[in-house]
Amino acid sequence: MRHFTHLKDLTPEEIQSILRQARIWKTVPPDHIFLNKILAMVFFNPSLRTRLSFEAAMLRHGGHAIALEVGSGSWNLEIESGAIMNSNKPEHVREAVPVISRLADIVGVRSFSLGLSHEEDDRDSVIHAFKSLSSVPVISMESAREHPCQGLADMLTIQEHFEELRPKVTLAWAPHIKSLPKAVPHSFLLSASAMGYDITVAHPPGYELATSVIKEAQNLSQRSGSRIRFSHNLDSAIQDTQVIYAKAWGPSSPLAAPLDTLTSWMTHERHLKLADPKSIFMHCLPVRRNVEVHDSILDSRQCKVIDEAENRFHIQRALIHFLLSHS
Amino acid sequence: MRHFTHLKDLTPEEIQSILRQARIWKTVPPDHIFLNKILAMVFFNPSLRTRLSFEAAMLRHGGHAIALEVGSGSWNLEIESGAIMNSNKPEHVREAVPVISRLADIVGVRSFSLGLSHEEDDRDSVIHAFKSLSSVPVISMESAREHPCQGLADMLTIQEHFEELRPKVTLAWAPHIKSLPKAVPHSFLLSASAMGYDITVAHPPGYELATSVIKEAQNLSQRSGSRIRFSHNLDSAIQDTQVIYAKAWGPSSPLAAPLDTLTSWMTHERHLKLADPKSIFMHCLPVRRNVEVHDSILDSRQCKVIDEAENRFHIQRALIHFLLSHS
Amino acid sequence: MRHFTHLKDLTPEEIQSILRQARIWKTVPPDHIFLNKILAMVFFNPSLRTRLSFEAAMLRHGGHAIALEVGSGSWNLEIESGAIMNSNKPEHVREAVPVISRLADIVGVRSFSLGLSHEEDDRDSVIHAFKSLSSVPVISMESAREHPCQGLADMLTIQEHFEELRPKVTLAWAPHIKSLPKAVPHSFLLSASAMGYDITVAHPPGYELATSVIKEAQNLSQRSGSRIRFSHNLDSAIQDTQVIYAKAWGPSSPLAAPLDTLTSWMTHERHLKLADPKSIFMHCLPVRRNVEVHDSILDSRQCKVIDEAENRFHIQRALIHFLLSHS
Repeated sequence: MRHFTHLKDLTPEEIQSILRQARIWKTVPPDHIFLNKILAMVFFNPSLRTRLSFEAAMLRHGGHAIALEVGSGSWNLEIESGAIMNSNKPEHVREAVPVISRLADIVGVRSFSLGLSHEEDDRDSVIHAFKSLSSVPVISMESAREHPCQGLADMLTIQEHFEELRPKVTLAWAPHIKSLPKAVPHSFLLSASAMGYDITVAHPPGYELATSVIKEAQNLSQRSGSRIRFSHNLDSAIQDTQVIYAKAWGPSSPLAAPLDTLTSWMTHERHLKLADPKSIFMHCLPVRRNVEVHDSILDSRQCKVIDEAENRFHIQRALIHFLLSHS
Repeated sequence: MRHFTHLKDLTPEEIQSILRQARIWKTVPPDHIFLNKILAMVFFNPSLRTRLSFEAAMLRHGGHAIALEVGSGSWNLEIESGAIMNSNKPEHVREAVPVISRLADIVGVRSFSLGLSHEEDDRDSVIHAFKSLSSVPVISMESAREHPCQGLADMLTIQEHFEELRPKVTLAWAPHIKSLPKAVPHSFLLSASAMGYDITVAHPPGYELATSVIKEAQNLSQRSGSRIRFSHNLDSAIQDTQVIYAKAWGPSSPLAAPLDTLTSWMTHERHLKLADPKSIFMHCLPVRRNVEVHDSILDSRQCKVIDEAENRFHIQRALIHFLLSHS
Repeated sequence: MRHFTHLKDLTPEEIQSILRQARIWKTVPPDHIFLNKILAMVFFNPSLRTRLSFEAAMLRHGGHAIALEVGSGSWNLEIESGAIMNSNKPEHVREAVPVISRLADIVGVRSFSLGLSHEEDDRDSVIHAFKSLSSVPVISMESAREHPCQGLADMLTIQEHFEELRPKVTLAWAPHIKSLPKAVPHSFLLSASAMGYDITVAHPPGYELATSVIKEAQNLSQRSGSRIRFSHNLDSAIQDTQVIYAKAWGPSSPLAAPLDTLTSWMTHERHLKLADPKSIFMHCLPVRRNVEVHDSILDSRQCKVIDEAENRFHIQRALIHFLLSHS
């Protein structure tokens, strides 16, 4: 049985094969490949785009999806072994996960970072508990450390626009009114490293990504031939790039400049002009217009955020098929 | 591509043809006319009856429905162009709607009046934003100005009981503990005007319907031969009528008598006796018994509110089929 | 038309036949026995396990389930006849239930005890209102008095482990941080009485089950040959038993010892050693580990709580099929 909760759950060959499958099926959709199959989606954090894209993938092909919202008032799950369960968590994953996996063919889990520490995010306790207790494949719908379906959907989007082996991509930190989790930028960095891209990550000082993720990306790059650079200068990081990938995330250090002093990091039409004339603009959505990214980019022809969102559907269809075929 | 968010989206001939289709399929249900089709239902306001009737229409015929609840804590949509999105609305319709319409075959939207003004309701900004941004048909599940599926379900119910060309129908204002939106009475007036009925609208002074809706109804009546009268006297408005359609709505003027002084507008068995002996009683539901309408009417044989609710299913099935056939 | 909201809705022969059907289909699943059928699930109280098991039963066999959450803010149902509906309950069951049953083929209802009194629980007003107003079969997803699907799933679990006619079963009261409803222990007692088992119910003084339920169980036992004993001593009640069924429920008397003085009632590995060496441990879940039941039992081989939860699916599939076949 196979799971997909972190990029390293797949070999580089499997990643390529899943991307290939996703592109083929985007052109020629398959038939009822999920006939009578049930995806149980367990949401520790709410979602609409993710739910819609996963549910549509099942429904389009004869399958079904059931959404279970954890912690919406009544149902919190304990994950600690040996816990004396006299608090507000009435059920342990040791019961909940085996029961869910008896009734479903594949289990999706969304469990965000609690924002405590990189170490805590690295542990990714909730999704690892699901993996160890489930009798059917587990697929991540975003966890504390990574959002691997987003990462692969992003690679699919880049592949659709650039034939060359090593496009130049820039992950550009963006301002936001909140301190957001790092799962999406982590998955972009890891996926692009596995693909062998020429990567620049630009962010203000004190907004570093997790060390363990950077190390994993560097290991991937040694095999793939990828190149990874970090920069504190948005303009130079975007110079001649082919992909601007904007994303907000929270500080890694208490000494980081506060969010409201970093408004100049909002990407703007003028940044597009620094980039390659054929460059594309990406963002995982939802995007706060004129806070993270200016209207002039989002309404431009180079903006591919809708295609990118649609590609979530295509990559997830290929991934679910892969997991069900190996279970 | 066609949408159905306001009655005027259909020609009079199309309205008749959809009513005919709904009646035929009510007797002889069609087969899998929605095979593998997905209806995405976007609820800015919660719903149960509407969700059940739309979802059942899809499921009965091989299709599927996915409910997305906007603004339930986490997901509010910005609709203003050029907004600096630093408030509690993390996503713009310019991204949300194209993404939803990439994954669905038809999009349902429910977005109530904010109760600000008739002008604001007339603008119906949310549902118009969906229409302009969606790549698939949009169907209203009630918006600020109209509830057009309810309006046509009401016409279907009247047609089932009266063979004559011009039944006499009375829209009777009803008391309520809250100031309710006018979408339902607007749609009843517009639909009945398009059908050529003999219409009386009875309400207390200061509870006028929107001027723009009345004008549209008068225009429709010129073509259909409908007759529209307004009255401040419930008894005389009900005299000899064939259809009593009770509905609560809020005041249009600050000088309107307060709701708690208008309890005599509650329809009661004695009103049935003023009407035609074969008259029917209608209400869109939910109804507050013994506040809007007395038990003696709701428990009478002339009460057709359950049939009327069931007809939502039948008319929506015909409408969704119409929209999918024209997309 | 048949309903299943209380155990007495089925004859002893029907109970046996449904258990037989459930066991057969657990081995050899049936085909599309629910093709195009819709189960409407009305939740006055939230649920995940129940929703998942009911929804999976429909989806696995060509059917569908629609979940309607009552009272989650916007939709409370009035059940009193003649009520003047000017409070926070905007809809009466007299409208809601007929409408739901026009659009669905079977209606599931979950409506917990309000914890007022045994008499109030016995009345079970909400679910009886649904039965009297629905035009399609009603199935309980747990009500104030009983949780009959759980009761039959429990019998299925016991049958799978014990070939003998009259296994010795012990319903063991368990501590909890809250005062829980009695529907589950009621249904265990009633079902085991109908099956003819040798039953011991152990609980602290002041935690009696409802008198009307005990009487019904005693009546059932006269026909089935069951034996029912009550005990205030957990150890002696478990001695040589074949089934330990732990369950927390609230006090029946204001003189009952407070919950926090009863921690010695938590079942523990040492209790397993008092029981028959081949005994099994059961619990309806969710279970608070190390409060109701110690880890040493839940992680033991004798613990069958996951099988028991899965059996909810199997028994509900057989029950829904029975009800649809008789409608």
